[in-house]
Amino acid sequence: MRVYLAGPEVFLPNAREQLDRKIALTRAAGLVPVSPGDLAIPETPTRRERALAISAIDEQLMCSADAIIANLTPFRGIAADPGTVFELGFMCARDKLVFAYSNTTADHFSRTRDYYRGTVAPGADGHQRGPDGTLVEDFDMAENLMLDGGVERRGGRVIVRDVPPERLYTDTAAFEECLRLLAEAGAAAGKH
Amino acid sequence: MRVYLAGPEVFLPNAREQLDRKIALTRAAGLVPVSPGDLAIPETPTRRERALAISAIDEQLMCSADAIIANLTPFRGIAADPGTVFELGFMCARDKLVFAYSNTTADHFSRTRDYYRGTVAPGADGHQRGPDGTLVEDFDMAENLMLDGGVERRGGRVIVRDVPPERLYTDTAAFEECLRLLAEAGAAAGKH
Repeated sequence: MRVYLAGPEVFLPNAREQLDRKIALTRAAGLVPVSPGDLAIPETPTRRERALAISAIDEQLMCSADAIIANLTPFRGIAADPGTVFELGFMCARDKLVFAYSNTTADHFSRTRDYYRGTVAPGADGHQRGPDGTLVEDFDMAENLMLDGGVERRGGRVIVRDVPPERLYTDTAAFEECLRLLAEAGAAAGKH
Repeated sequence: MRVYLAGPEVFLPNAREQLDRKIALTRAAGLVPVSPGDLAIPETPTRRERALAISAIDEQLMCSADAIIANLTPFRGIAADPGTVFELGFMCARDKLVFAYSNTTADHFSRTRDYYRGTVAPGADGHQRGPDGTLVEDFDMAENLMLDGGVERRGGRVIVRDVPPERLYTDTAAFEECLRLLAEAGAAAGKH
């Protein structure tokens, strides 16, 4: 079973090292890793065309995979990396096996409350709202409901763990739990 | 042609009013609006089950549509609303007609540079990096390359405009431009 490894690792200073670590763990779990960077990007005349080439290759890699494990650990703000979120939606739409994880147990509601410096409270309609009046989802979910919902309604799981701050993007315990659950799900579905 | 209207409008204090405005504009463009909130959410015993029900209904609405227009205006940070990004990825994977817009011309690179308070510079490898060493995409794109790439490679467009700050989530000029382009694309594809 081929599994696409989505996450903000591609942006890390030690990207190659961290991707290689996840690739090795995937193989150790009896699964075939499919990782951004697996295919060479062709030379292009402009930066924009280079980006389009990477987009095409990453979509091609996703289509070749049976499953995704998406690292939804908040990146540059309170939410998951948008590229990773796009890929999770993409794989849900293709009815692949979908798992996700975050290296924080602070859920969507508590992160948004922190964003508003604590000033989130029920409005006149009973819904939680920020000081700007915007609705704050309060569903006991790690991310926006389309993400958690998309994963869970397909039989996947969103695994959350707290890790030391310096290991926010490198700790692999939650990822390894996803690998274990995916291997089980794949075996149940008769995929190897 | 049915078009799914994705965006953070669902969280606004005047959500219903803003959604109705977009619905009316869509009809005026000769297209059929498909909007979150079109279907009633069944009663559920827990908040979590309510979220799963909304996720199921929104996916069902997306599947019923021929196209998406995604509002990628940054929301609660430097990036687009994760629910909207998930939906854009979902519709790209289903090979629908895809258009997107943002009510700021500040691109992904400049927003990320602002996030790092200006301290983004080329690293030893020549790539732009933040003070934490992470790579900053510099592709002349409104968002992460998977989003702009997913749209453009399918013949769609990402329309960006600057609007007065107080109209960041309510100005519809860029949305109307997407409607116009989508109606043309639909006509070219023989869809009505």
